[in-house]
Amino acid sequence: MESPATDKNTTMGVENHQVNEELLLKQITELVINQRLLSGKTNAEDRVVNFVHPEDLKKLVHLSLGGNPLNHVQILELCKQAVEYSVKTNHPKFLNQLYHACDPVGLAGAWLSEALNTNLHTYEVAPFFMMVEYTVLAHLRSFFGWKDGDGIFAPGGSMANMYGMVLARFKKFPEVKTKGVGGIAELVAFTSQEGHYSIAKAAHWIGLGTDNLIIVASDSTGEMIPAELENKIVKALEQKKVPFFVNATAGTTVLGAYDPLEPLALVCQKYGVWLHVDAAWGGAAIVSKKYRSLMHGIDLVDSVAWNLHKMLGAPLQCSAFLTKHEDILHRCNSASATYLFQTDKFYDVSYDTGDKSVQCGRKIDAFKLWLMWKARGDQGLEEMVDNAFECAEYFSDQISQRSGFRLVLSKPNCTNVCFWYIPRRLRNCQESSEWWGEISKVAPTIKKRMVEKGSLMIGYQPLPHKNLVNFFRLVIPCLPPPTHEDMNFVIDEIERLGCDL
Amino acid sequence: MESPATDKNTTMGVENHQVNEELLLKQITELVINQRLLSGKTNAEDRVVNFVHPEDLKKLVHLSLGGNPLNHVQILELCKQAVEYSVKTNHPKFLNQLYHACDPVGLAGAWLSEALNTNLHTYEVAPFFMMVEYTVLAHLRSFFGWKDGDGIFAPGGSMANMYGMVLARFKKFPEVKTKGVGGIAELVAFTSQEGHYSIAKAAHWIGLGTDNLIIVASDSTGEMIPAELENKIVKALEQKKVPFFVNATAGTTVLGAYDPLEPLALVCQKYGVWLHVDAAWGGAAIVSKKYRSLMHGIDLVDSVAWNLHKMLGAPLQCSAFLTKHEDILHRCNSASATYLFQTDKFYDVSYDTGDKSVQCGRKIDAFKLWLMWKARGDQGLEEMVDNAFECAEYFSDQISQRSGFRLVLSKPNCTNVCFWYIPRRLRNCQESSEWWGEISKVAPTIKKRMVEKGSLMIGYQPLPHKNLVNFFRLVIPCLPPPTHEDMNFVIDEIERLGCDL
Ligand SMILES: Cc1ncc(COP(=O)(O)O)c(C=O)c1O
Ligand SMILES: Cc1ncc(COP(=O)(O)O)c(C=O)c1O
Repeated sequence: MESPATDKNTTMGVENHQVNEELLLKQITELVINQRLLSGKTNAEDRVVNFVHPEDLKKLVHLSLGGNPLNHVQILELCKQAVEYSVKTNHPKFLNQLYHACDPVGLAGAWLSEALNTNLHTYEVAPFFMMVEYTVLAHLRSFFGWKDGDGIFAPGGSMANMYGMVLARFKKFPEVKTKGVGGIAELVAFTSQEGHYSIAKAAHWIGLGTDNLIIVASDSTGEMIPAELENKIVKALEQKKVPFFVNATAGTTVLGAYDPLEPLALVCQKYGVWLHVDAAWGGAAIVSKKYRSLMHGIDLVDSVAWNLHKMLGAPLQCSAFLTKHEDILHRCNSASATYLFQTDKFYDVSYDTGDKSVQCGRKIDAFKLWLMWKARGDQGLEEMVDNAFECAEYFSDQISQRSGFRLVLSKPNCTNVCFWYIPRRLRNCQESSEWWGEISKVAPTIKKRMVEKGSLMIGYQPLPHKNLVNFFRLVIPCLPPPTHEDMNFVIDEIERLGCDL
Repeated sequence: MESPATDKNTTMGVENHQVNEELLLKQITELVINQRLLSGKTNAEDRVVNFVHPEDLKKLVHLSLGGNPLNHVQILELCKQAVEYSVKTNHPKFLNQLYHACDPVGLAGAWLSEALNTNLHTYEVAPFFMMVEYTVLAHLRSFFGWKDGDGIFAPGGSMANMYGMVLARFKKFPEVKTKGVGGIAELVAFTSQEGHYSIAKAAHWIGLGTDNLIIVASDSTGEMIPAELENKIVKALEQKKVPFFVNATAGTTVLGAYDPLEPLALVCQKYGVWLHVDAAWGGAAIVSKKYRSLMHGIDLVDSVAWNLHKMLGAPLQCSAFLTKHEDILHRCNSASATYLFQTDKFYDVSYDTGDKSVQCGRKIDAFKLWLMWKARGDQGLEEMVDNAFECAEYFSDQISQRSGFRLVLSKPNCTNVCFWYIPRRLRNCQESSEWWGEISKVAPTIKKRMVEKGSLMIGYQPLPHKNLVNFFRLVIPCLPPPTHEDMNFVIDEIERLGCDL
C-alpha cells in the first residue's frame, strides 16, 4: 500500500510535523557522545577541523529555508553535517581561542536549562535559577575579598565591560540616566594599549567616542604602566576633561599580561576614578593559590568582568559582571516596568533581580557554572588552572631551547604563549625589515597548512603598537587538561608544517 | 572491602572527578523526556509550578559553593531539584510571559550547538554556523520585502533595539563613533507610551538620557498616533533638537498593539528620521498570510528587532536585528581587531562577520531556529501563528459573553488578551474610584492562588498612563498549540479561583 504522501503534506504543520522529537533528542545525545565531542574523548586520529571553503560548504549543505518541512531522517542528517563541518573545540589541539572544550557537567547544566526554557528576570518564572545565580555571584565575589557587592551575568565579556563603564559614569553623574551625556562634562576613560577592543566598542555605544578613550602605554611584557596612567589622567584634568573610568586587564588577549592592580587602584583612588578590571580571560587565576597573586589588589577595584567560559571551561557563554558596590547596579539600570516588576506580588520580590540588567529576558548562564563547580569543587578548578599554567611554562621552556622558535616574551604572563617560528633559511640572518617582512608571512602559511591538515589550530596576529609582525599565540586550555605530550606535539607539528618555508 | 574514600578525595580534580559525564548527559535527556518538559508532552495532572518561597528554597536545596566535589548521584539529584522547583514553561497553562514552550527540534539544535561550544565571530571557528546565520537572516529579511540588507543575532530584543538606536545615530552622525555625542547636536528619540522599557534603558546606556526619549501618545487600542509623532518631531525641531530615531512597536508588550508602520514611515521620511520596529513580540505575524497586514509598511522601515523565541517558540534566546541598509552595521561597529579579523587569512573573510557586533564572542542563536524552520517549513510556522491568533479571538469572544469578565480592548490586537475579572460582589455596582481600587486587588490575589495551586500562570499589571488598574494579560502561545479547551479552562479556573473575592 502506498502512503498518502500528498495528504501528509497538506496536513503537516502544527501537530503533525514528522519529527519524532524525543527520539531526536536521544540521537543528539548519541551523536555528541559517538562523535567524541566531549572534553577528553577525542581519539588520536580525530581531526580538529575538516576545513571547507564557504562556497563549497554552500554546495555541500542544503542551507536555504522556505522549502517543504523536512522529516526526521533529514533533520538528523543536517545535525550530522553540522558536526562534520564544525571545528572540534573540544580537541586537545584546538588552541586557537581563549575558549576551548567545555566542562561536560557544565554542558549537562546547559542542556537542562535550555530545556526548561525560561528567563532570568523574575523569581516568578525562574525561582530555582534565580537562587543559583545569586549563590554563584556571591561565591565569585568571595575570591576578591570584598565585604559585599553585587553582580549579574552578562551576554559576554564585552557586555560585562560595558556594564562597568555605564556604572562608573552613573556613579559620577547619576543625572546621566535622565539627562544624557550632552550637558555634562567632557568625560574620558582609560585603557592600556593591550586592552580588549570591546572597550573601544563600548566607548562608541555609550556615546563617549573612541577619541575619548585614552590609551595608556604598557611595558615590555604588556602591563599597563601606572605612572603613565597618572600622567594621562593629569593631562586630561589640565584639559578640563573628567576622567571617570579606568579599564585594567587581568590577562590581556594577546600577551596575557596582568596589569598591576594595586598601584593602578592607588592612582584611581587619588583621582576619584572607577577602576574596572577586565578579567575576561585571566580571571581564573584567582581560584589558584599559586597564581592569584597575579591579581594582587583586586580587593581595591570597583568592578570586574570575568568570563567563566574562557579559562575555566564553562560552556559558552558564561560572563559575570561583579561590583564591589551594593545597590548601584539596580539604581543605574532599573526601569521598574509595571508589567514585570510589580511590587504587589505575594513573595519576596528582592529576588526579582532582572531590573538590574540592561536586558529584559536573560539566559540562564549561572546554572551550568554552578553545576560544574559543584562537581569539581574549588579544588578541582584550582588543579585545572595550575595544570594549564604549568603547561604554558613547560611549552615556553621547551621552545626557548629549540632552534627555529623565538618567544615574544621571555616568560609567559598567563597560559597564552606568543612566539615566532623561524624557518631554516631565515635563521642566523641579519634581522632587517625585509627579514621581518618574511617572518610575517610564516604564521599565515603554517596556519593554512594546519587547518587544511586538521592537525592543530593556533591563532596568529601582529601587534602593531609593539612593532611585532605576525606571531603565533598558543592558548593553553584548562580543558581537556593539557599534557607535556600535547605541548611537544605542537612544537613538532609546527616544525613539520613549516620546515620547507 | 571498604573503598578508600580519603584517597579518592585527595586525588579528585583534573581528571578524576567522579561524574560519569556521558551517562549524565543521557540521564539529562531522560529527565527532560520523563519529566515531560517538552512541548505538548504535559500530562493532565502536571502542575505549572510547584511554588516555594525564596527562603524555603534556600533550605530545600544545598545551594552554596566551595565545598567538596559532589559525585555523580549528587549532581543528578541537583538536576532533579532544578526540574522540581522550576516553572514548567512548556505547560499549556503557562500563559504568563511572551515566551512559552520551545520547539523541541529547536531544542535539539540548541543542545548540539552548546556541545560544539564555539563563538559566532569568525568563519575560522564556526564555518557551519556562520553560513547558517547568514541564511537565516536572509530568510527573515525576505518577509519584509527589502531588496537587500544586513543583520545579526543579538542577545535579546533589548539589545536588538539598542542596535537600532546606535545605527540610527551613526547614520546621521558617523563621527559619533570617534568623537562621542558630547560635541554634536541635542539628539532626541521617540517611542510610544506603549513601547517597551528596553528603549528607555538603551537611551540611558547610549548616553541619550531618558529625558531625550520623547513619549508619543497612543490611541485607545494602544497604537502610536502618527499625527502625534509628527507634532512631537516638529516641536523638537523648533527647540533646535535633532530627531534621529523613532521606535515603532509591532505587538506591544501589554496590549499587543501594532503601530501603523506606513503612516509612521511617511512621517519619518519627511523628517529624515530612522524608523526602527520593535517586533520582538509581534513580528511572527509576518509569516502568516492572514495576519501580516498588521505590519503593513514594514518594507519602508530602516530596521527591525524580532524575537524568534517569543511567539514562534525558538528556544531562548533567539533575537534577530535586521536592517534594510547594507554595510552600515559593519561600518558602525567594526573595530578590526588584528588578533581576530586578520585580512591575510587564506579563506574568503567576508564571512568573518563578528566585527559587525558590539559583542566579541557571540552565542550560536541561529542554528536552533534554522533547524526548527527546516522541520516545520514556512507553512508549519504559519499554521502555528494562525492557530494562536484564532485562539486569542476565541478567548476574547468567550469572555465578552461571560459575566464577571471585562475586556480591556473590545478585540485583541495580537495573541495577548487583556481583561479584568470582576468578583460577584462587585458586579453591577457604581464604578467609583473605590470600586476600581477593589478591582486592582483582584488580579494579584487570583495570581497568588493560581501559583499556589499550580494550575495556571497568567500575568497581570496596571497601565498607569491609560489609567487602568491591575488587569490580567493572557498570552496565548504558539507552542504547545493551544486549543479552545485550553481557553475554556482559563476562564473557568479564574472563576473558580476568584469566586469568593
Ligand atoms: C515589545 C518588546 N520589545 C522588546 C522586548 C525585550 O526583549 P528581550 O526580553 O529579549 O530583551 C520585549 C520583552 O518582552 C517586548 O515585549
Ligand atoms: C581580555 C578580554 N576582554 C574581553 C573579551 C571579550 O569577551 P567576550 O568575547 O565574551 O565578549 C575578550 C575576548 O577575547 C578578552 O580577551
